[in-house]
Amino acid sequence: MTIQSVQSFAAGQWLAPDSGARPIESALTGRVIAEAGRSHLDAGVLLEHAKTAGGPTLRDMTFHDRARMVKALATYLSQHKQALYDLSYHTGGTLSDHKIDIDGGISTMFVIASKGRREMPDARVYIDGDVEYLSRDGSFLGQHICTPLQGVAVHINAFNFPVWGMLEKLAPTLLAGVPAIVKPATATCYVTEACVRLMLESGLLPQGALQFVAGGLGDMLDLLGPQDIVSFTGSAETALKLRGRANILENSVRFVAEQDSLNASVLGPDAKPETPEFSIFIKEVCQEITVKAGQKCTAVRRVFVPDSLLDAVVHALKQRLSEVVIGDPNLHTTGMGALVSASQKHDVLDKVSQISAEAERVFGDPNGFEISGDDVQDGAFLPPMLFHCADPDAARNVHDVEAFGPVSTIMGYRDLDHAIALLNRGKGSLVASVITRDTDVARQLALGSAAWHGRLYFNNRDSKDAATGHGSPLPHMVHGGPGRAGGGEELGGVRGVLHYMQRTAIQGSPDIVSAIAGTWTDGSREITEDTHPFTRTFEVLKVGETLHSDSRTVTLDDIETFARFTGDTFYAHMDEDAAAANPFFPGRVAHGYLLLSFAAGLFVQPDPGPVLANTGLDRLRFMKPVVPGDSIQVRLTVKQKTKRNDEYGEVRWDVRLSNQDNETVATYDLLTMNAYAASS
Amino acid sequence: MTIQSVQSFAAGQWLAPDSGARPIESALTGRVIAEAGRSHLDAGVLLEHAKTAGGPTLRDMTFHDRARMVKALATYLSQHKQALYDLSYHTGGTLSDHKIDIDGGISTMFVIASKGRREMPDARVYIDGDVEYLSRDGSFLGQHICTPLQGVAVHINAFNFPVWGMLEKLAPTLLAGVPAIVKPATATCYVTEACVRLMLESGLLPQGALQFVAGGLGDMLDLLGPQDIVSFTGSAETALKLRGRANILENSVRFVAEQDSLNASVLGPDAKPETPEFSIFIKEVCQEITVKAGQKCTAVRRVFVPDSLLDAVVHALKQRLSEVVIGDPNLHTTGMGALVSASQKHDVLDKVSQISAEAERVFGDPNGFEISGDDVQDGAFLPPMLFHCADPDAARNVHDVEAFGPVSTIMGYRDLDHAIALLNRGKGSLVASVITRDTDVARQLALGSAAWHGRLYFNNRDSKDAATGHGSPLPHMVHGGPGRAGGGEELGGVRGVLHYMQRTAIQGSPDIVSAIAGTWTDGSREITEDTHPFTRTFEVLKVGETLHSDSRTVTLDDIETFARFTGDTFYAHMDEDAAAANPFFPGRVAHGYLLLSFAAGLFVQPDPGPVLANTGLDRLRFMKPVVPGDSIQVRLTVKQKTKRNDEYGEVRWDVRLSNQDNETVATYDLLTMNAYAASS
Repeated sequence: MTIQSVQSFAAGQWLAPDSGARPIESALTGRVIAEAGRSHLDAGVLLEHAKTAGGPTLRDMTFHDRARMVKALATYLSQHKQALYDLSYHTGGTLSDHKIDIDGGISTMFVIASKGRREMPDARVYIDGDVEYLSRDGSFLGQHICTPLQGVAVHINAFNFPVWGMLEKLAPTLLAGVPAIVKPATATCYVTEACVRLMLESGLLPQGALQFVAGGLGDMLDLLGPQDIVSFTGSAETALKLRGRANILENSVRFVAEQDSLNASVLGPDAKPETPEFSIFIKEVCQEITVKAGQKCTAVRRVFVPDSLLDAVVHALKQRLSEVVIGDPNLHTTGMGALVSASQKHDVLDKVSQISAEAERVFGDPNGFEISGDDVQDGAFLPPMLFHCADPDAARNVHDVEAFGPVSTIMGYRDLDHAIALLNRGKGSLVASVITRDTDVARQLALGSAAWHGRLYFNNRDSKDAATGHGSPLPHMVHGGPGRAGGGEELGGVRGVLHYMQRTAIQGSPDIVSAIAGTWTDGSREITEDTHPFTRTFEVLKVGETLHSDSRTVTLDDIETFARFTGDTFYAHMDEDAAAANPFFPGRVAHGYLLLSFAAGLFVQPDPGPVLANTGLDRLRFMKPVVPGDSIQVRLTVKQKTKRNDEYGEVRWDVRLSNQDNETVATYDLLTMNAYAASS
Repeated sequence: MTIQSVQSFAAGQWLAPDSGARPIESALTGRVIAEAGRSHLDAGVLLEHAKTAGGPTLRDMTFHDRARMVKALATYLSQHKQALYDLSYHTGGTLSDHKIDIDGGISTMFVIASKGRREMPDARVYIDGDVEYLSRDGSFLGQHICTPLQGVAVHINAFNFPVWGMLEKLAPTLLAGVPAIVKPATATCYVTEACVRLMLESGLLPQGALQFVAGGLGDMLDLLGPQDIVSFTGSAETALKLRGRANILENSVRFVAEQDSLNASVLGPDAKPETPEFSIFIKEVCQEITVKAGQKCTAVRRVFVPDSLLDAVVHALKQRLSEVVIGDPNLHTTGMGALVSASQKHDVLDKVSQISAEAERVFGDPNGFEISGDDVQDGAFLPPMLFHCADPDAARNVHDVEAFGPVSTIMGYRDLDHAIALLNRGKGSLVASVITRDTDVARQLALGSAAWHGRLYFNNRDSKDAATGHGSPLPHMVHGGPGRAGGGEELGGVRGVLHYMQRTAIQGSPDIVSAIAGTWTDGSREITEDTHPFTRTFEVLKVGETLHSDSRTVTLDDIETFARFTGDTFYAHMDEDAAAANPFFPGRVAHGYLLLSFAAGLFVQPDPGPVLANTGLDRLRFMKPVVPGDSIQVRLTVKQKTKRNDEYGEVRWDVRLSNQDNETVATYDLLTMNAYAASS
């Protein structure tokens, strides 16, 4: 086969590696299959291109524009993924490993894009939290907003997931409106390069939104400024070197680190051998040891089981691990492939010897195991290895040393407090799992241990068919962890997008706050049009457009009629004495739902028109009771508009009900779906 | 006067400084008034005391318990604040400066406590965001939670706000459930010590929740671990030294830095001399120069005005600054006091000489100004100084060098893009202000500049009477900023509390997620009691308690009756053909409010009992239309309980309306106020 020369993509150009290119060997055969090295590229040029071309174009788009772009990229990759599978075999993994990487990466893009459409506005400013009333008279308000960083995101990725590792960072970055420079680990950068080529070929990305550096970054980190962000995945050692650089610290450059950690799995005391939980545990732990040959930052390195169940668990794990066929991932019988390289294998064996000082190997002999497949006998294979540590309290290495391969250590615990103490000995991890059906066990472990973990994964018979596995970071949930895990956080839906944005507190008059946030705020200018807002199509309706309704008197007869009709004969509406004894009411009062219903009667324009449906209501608060004889009136204002498709969009209305003394009786947000002119 | 020997409070003991104690001079007289130095204290002992005594006790309390404690502390301080004013004169400030520090600090505690009660649950776990449905069948869910860090918060504070600087960090820390060790700047630590003594004397704080170190921290920072957090306020230089320490980086110790920055104020192009905005600008800029003699991390260092208004602004500023009386803050005529110390004055003069290289001094002569007051002629006084820089694009120092005193530089801008470019030359700041009434100007500046600032403050005639000032961080809004400002964030209500907590993604079955989050989640176990939940008092009502109502058929007559009664004759309810032409409806459908009203009729227990009132409703979504002949049924479940006072608490109910095919018609959260047994 030909040797792939991995290129870099800088300032719109593909550049071949320079003369110092380094060979990359196949994990399976040890033969050189590619070469990569630093091209003749100037880090300053990449940064400048990203800042002058990519950033401004991305920032001119709305969150929905960018979400559509991310979705289109995911769709394009999905249509071309076979080429990525084909290339991936040389990384040592099986087809199911590749799917975790490639399909996992693509589906992360889809989820992030979908969250962008559903949970972010079709606007350039993201609103964080509620309006803060900073003055009693409402003339001075506060509102937090998030806007895109005006710099560049530099993504430094690990070798184990050449596709997912790029896409899980790229999707939130692009959605935030920030250009990215991706630097993959060299060992598998040929797969990443192929994926980058696909994305660029798609024509979906603006100039400068994505650049790619195979080989080293040169002095790029020393050129970063206060609006740039580094997102690093890899070893703690490398993270430490990078984040401690003077320029990073001096400019407060955001540095998000996601480091390998000593993740653990706990078997609950309730999960006896005859329970479904026991089988789930054996299955999940074996999976964590063997998937990607244990080369996952989330893999289970430490296994905690009740002392009384230790023998049974070891027996069951050995049984299951012995069924795993190791060898050529091209053979469909193979359950576990190779490590990524011979040097990675050596590193694992070195760590294994440190663990051996404190723990006994109970399964897997690196010097005696079978490799299936003829052509791959020189590949970087290892068997799954299980260690048992008899004194986990005294031990250090088993809690500190990570063998980044198919290696775990099992330890017994006395009681839950002991399990929590051992869990937390990992000094911070990406994920811990607990297999239990006992909700008290789950709560106790969470209270004792959540602060040490970025994710706590629980599984049992109730969730087993749907559970996504200890080791899988999901785009919906945060990924990262404190301490040894790097202290960073990624993903978690919109949370992961906000890491690429700056949160800013805005203070000002209602008009100013409304103009910046792009939503109408109580106290700001009302727009009056000649026609009823229900008659105006989505595109012409203006934020701030307001209708003041007629008023309607609420009579005792209304209240009684409503009570009889609905069956809601609560005493506060029906019995004067009982109502007056209630601390909140002066006497009989109108039903809250009667007020909502009369309000609709006051503001609804009944004829067919752009308003298609009332889809919901948010934040309803009843502020003051309405007694018989009071009259109510409605102020209805367009608060926010969100396009949903080419035919209609959602309108959020600010509704205020007041009484004859102009006291606020109730406030709420009303949601309607409104048609565009073309379809109305 | 006697010399105050500032002590440290460590592991429950007050300790005198050791022999290396350093003298502290009065800012007014230069005479030694106190001494402080490192006591014979072992940093490890303080950390251990906080972790073993303070942390566990605080974590056993709920957010509301802690909020009540913070409120009680604030009340106690408020009753004893005169002693703090008295001591503060030696820091050089005026009474109104002391009020910013002392009353500002106390009111920050009140606001944070109140937010804790209103926006956090009466529980030990904070719920972050919505449940994530990770499987189609609902058997595997995700929920983010926040729990207190299990370490210690080390607060390193600046000299300028000896009280506020401590309290604004302490309130969120305690509310989070984390013990604190406070290390004030030595120059004003005698005021901080007095405040700490008051808090300890109050008897409100658990053992180990608050310790105090006068003098240096010794090797404390090198002993911190992955659950500890440093919150630093001060110079960029010191921050850099501290955050770059190997132990901090290796353990991913959270390091929040709030550094002095080159904050700016912009006069909008609309704010001509005859407008109210022009006067507001002159007033705010002068305030920022003179309050605390300019020793505020948020003070305006750079002033940007339209080129055409430059002369008018300079003229008006000079006029107003010339009216400021400098001298003994004990005299009520004094407008500006002294800097904190002679060495601080020298530092300011040094920076002034760097600014002078690029800008001309147009007001204030440090070698020729009047000091009022007989006893203070040797104090660390400076006059307010205004510089004008004619070429702000070429200049560097005016954007880079901060004179931490009564010093600002004024510069002209050509247009808004130029103003934005100059603003962002500060490389990140805590706050920028814009005085404008033009909402387009406000929006353009926000889009161009928000990412460079932690806060953007707008003021104009509409907000001037209520506006809180460019320089005042408010507990409701975040305080901090990117880049030069340190990249940190504090306050912002609950946001500031979460910085002392770990966010963890929880994944599991509905039962597990409900047990950990302490709120009922759809799909988790329902509890059935013999009696109607409306008859059960707040304290006995259980989360998960569920009522399944009878069903009721909705007839066409119901719909027509409701339409006539309420006046809501929207065509989707009244006109079969028009309704069928609507993309969302099969034909005539029931009003959403009719469904809500009938639902209440189905679940309400009408007799007087613990349920006092329906106070509101959240997250109502109509999922499927109800047509004549459908019947509806309600599932009502206790989702969350929040105690409000000794008499009643808020119950949040999960409500699901379904039709005869068990399809969900609508879902919402219902809020009621429910009485305790004693008061019902």
